[in-house]
Amino acid sequence: MVRLTRSIDFSASLQYRQGDLSDADNRRLFGAESRPHGHNYRLEVTLRGELDPATGMVFDLRELKQILEREVMARFDHRDLNADTPYFEKDPPTPENLAGVIRGLLLDALPTGMLDRVVLHQDQDLFVEIVEDPA
Amino acid sequence: MVRLTRSIDFSASLQYRQGDLSDADNRRLFGAESRPHGHNYRLEVTLRGELDPATGMVFDLRELKQILEREVMARFDHRDLNADTPYFEKDPPTPENLAGVIRGLLLDALPTGMLDRVVLHQDQDLFVEIVEDPA
Amino acid sequence: MVRLTRSIDFSASLQYRQGDLSDADNRRLFGAESRPHGHNYRLEVTLRGELDPATGMVFDLRELKQILEREVMARFDHRDLNADTPYFEKDPPTPENLAGVIRGLLLDALPTGMLDRVVLHQDQDLFVEIVEDPA
Amino acid sequence: MVRLTRSIDFSASLQYRQGDLSDADNRRLFGAESRPHGHNYRLEVTLRGELDPATGMVFDLRELKQILEREVMARFDHRDLNADTPYFEKDPPTPENLAGVIRGLLLDALPTGMLDRVVLHQDQDLFVEIVEDPA
Amino acid sequence: MVRLTRSIDFSASLQYRQGDLSDADNRRLFGAESRPHGHNYRLEVTLRGELDPATGMVFDLRELKQILEREVMARFDHRDLNADTPYFEKDPPTPENLAGVIRGLLLDALPTGMLDRVVLHQDQDLFVEIVEDPA
Amino acid sequence: MVRLTRSIDFSASLQYRQGDLSDADNRRLFGAESRPHGHNYRLEVTLRGELDPATGMVFDLRELKQILEREVMARFDHRDLNADTPYFEKDPPTPENLAGVIRGLLLDALPTGMLDRVVLHQDQDLFVEIVEDPA
Repeated sequence: MVRLTRSIDFSASLQYRQGDLSDADNRRLFGAESRPHGHNYRLEVTLRGELDPATGMVFDLRELKQILEREVMARFDHRDLNADTPYFEKDPPTPENLAGVIRGLLLDALPTGMLDRVVLHQDQDLFVEIVEDPA
Repeated sequence: MVRLTRSIDFSASLQYRQGDLSDADNRRLFGAESRPHGHNYRLEVTLRGELDPATGMVFDLRELKQILEREVMARFDHRDLNADTPYFEKDPPTPENLAGVIRGLLLDALPTGMLDRVVLHQDQDLFVEIVEDPA
Repeated sequence: MVRLTRSIDFSASLQYRQGDLSDADNRRLFGAESRPHGHNYRLEVTLRGELDPATGMVFDLRELKQILEREVMARFDHRDLNADTPYFEKDPPTPENLAGVIRGLLLDALPTGMLDRVVLHQDQDLFVEIVEDPA
Repeated sequence: MVRLTRSIDFSASLQYRQGDLSDADNRRLFGAESRPHGHNYRLEVTLRGELDPATGMVFDLRELKQILEREVMARFDHRDLNADTPYFEKDPPTPENLAGVIRGLLLDALPTGMLDRVVLHQDQDLFVEIVEDPA
Repeated sequence: MVRLTRSIDFSASLQYRQGDLSDADNRRLFGAESRPHGHNYRLEVTLRGELDPATGMVFDLRELKQILEREVMARFDHRDLNADTPYFEKDPPTPENLAGVIRGLLLDALPTGMLDRVVLHQDQDLFVEIVEDPA
Repeated sequence: MVRLTRSIDFSASLQYRQGDLSDADNRRLFGAESRPHGHNYRLEVTLRGELDPATGMVFDLRELKQILEREVMARFDHRDLNADTPYFEKDPPTPENLAGVIRGLLLDALPTGMLDRVVLHQDQDLFVEIVEDPA
């Protein structure tokens, strides 16, 4: 089994807000993260599988690019995570939650059993990862 | 003469807007940049001067850190450049304009003749720089 | 389960010495590493756990920062690993041994079962990692 | 158990060719990758094991350097993967296949059970990895 | 005056050959560089100028992208510098010569006086730059 | 005129000490920098000149490598800057002073007029540079 990782970059604005809390409580809970800010996110998507003997590849890179364009770039790049996406009305867009949303979208878009993990870098000092169980 | 460069990182949200234009015209002029997004900016501030023979330094790093904290981090980090700062009501927060604002703040805060240049990285593929004339 | 990784940097001086050996034997065993030198270490600390539904986080980042400040930065940053810490009187401060010491300190400081792994980069071409068993 | 990772860089030229296909079919299958191009590859080789109590190391770094020099650098650095190596007469030199070849060479050259994984970066946006089963 | 730098990456194969020399003499002159190899080149193109008051930009980034696509990517990406371009029949494709060719192409394609410099990274340890005289 | 930059890395230990001051005064003046610590320094050496028409190079890279090995690596790599070199008995090994020493050594070792600048990175957030006047 071989794992292949493709990285993409997107830029988004956000602020941490728990939808059930007041502004003051959000400030208390999240500090500076409750203020509007932004990140150049780097997403690493890892696929696993056997090599296709005809191509010597785990997965067709052009198809992977299309999936990442449609599922990730079109939804999140140059967007406000709170206002422009439906995922963070109640939950704050922490890297943990954002990685979880992206993982769900990619599990649906990729052939069953191919997603190995997603790693989401928020900046050069912080990243989160969600690893799928072995088949 | 020696040049010393200190780099800092800050995170901000923004959207390109020419204050005199309608939303539709801004979209036409700026495309995806007219939508809310964000960046992990990296700022490189370069000072120039003779070495202080007592310390072997161009400038005291603790004082430089305080200046960058007060003039840059406190104004721009975890802020919305359009809504939370007074600099982009009319002009869009392009990296050129943002670097120009930061240059002006640092020229005022640093001893005359010490600022050599500011370099502002918006992401890993784009940066702008403003270089001061030689004394 | 989600994994969260926070990276910190520290600067230390060191020389490889096996405490039971003579200077000549240490030179023979460790070569240039037996001479005083130094590194900008980069430490990646990975935690694992379920998300706190209130915050959308695996662990509070401010608390993690305090733990890393107290357990790692205060002990090792701008220190001589041989002379200023009690960990390398007998064993040489190889990255393997240093990562092992840091792992032990973090296992004690973090809630049981939260530490997933430590990765210690000595320079851009060498790193070590110690991964905890699954719960 | 500790894992140690050493990274090396090599530069090679290549073009994707399935040996059984015509030039036109290779162009259709592989697109721009069927044209001659080149990469600065970065290879991360990870070893696993117990620490040698005398040296505090998983493996002697000078010996590892010799193995990587002989097995990887001498074969692939400043070479054409198609013309100058025997591994890609039929299979295209995808990063998956190249990592597989390197893994085989290192399994033979290293003590049994020491190789943990190879990670091969083709450029800053794509890498593959092959992880050995636990002992 | 503000300077704006845009970076792009391309992948090419090459070998150093002085067209007037025999194979043996090329090997003697250029060593391993005379063998086929390849690089992920990173090109930084710097423009200089006054800001357009309407856009707050030195140059329209979409137009710059088109120019770089046409003049650099279409000519050099996934190409063999010796066989697929007309620039290195006599001169070897050293980074100095390749940067000189790219500089000439960009001087022709950009408005007069806008090109400030080109920087070409061959790998992480070597780059060349050609800086235009001030206007 | 073309500029060529070659980067090398070395690892050294150091502590800031003004030779005329007491330990207590050095602690007061330099804070944590007065304690033993270390860095992975990255040095960028830039040469300038016309291209040799026979080789298409500003300078022979093998000769440059030998000079850097002899003048920089042999003196500073895996050394203690205070104890193992004669340059910092009185002056503290700030990056400004260390860059000044290296500049002097390279001015002596290189052909007259070839050195363009030295840039010395102490860590990822701080570097100094010394630029030679135009000929």
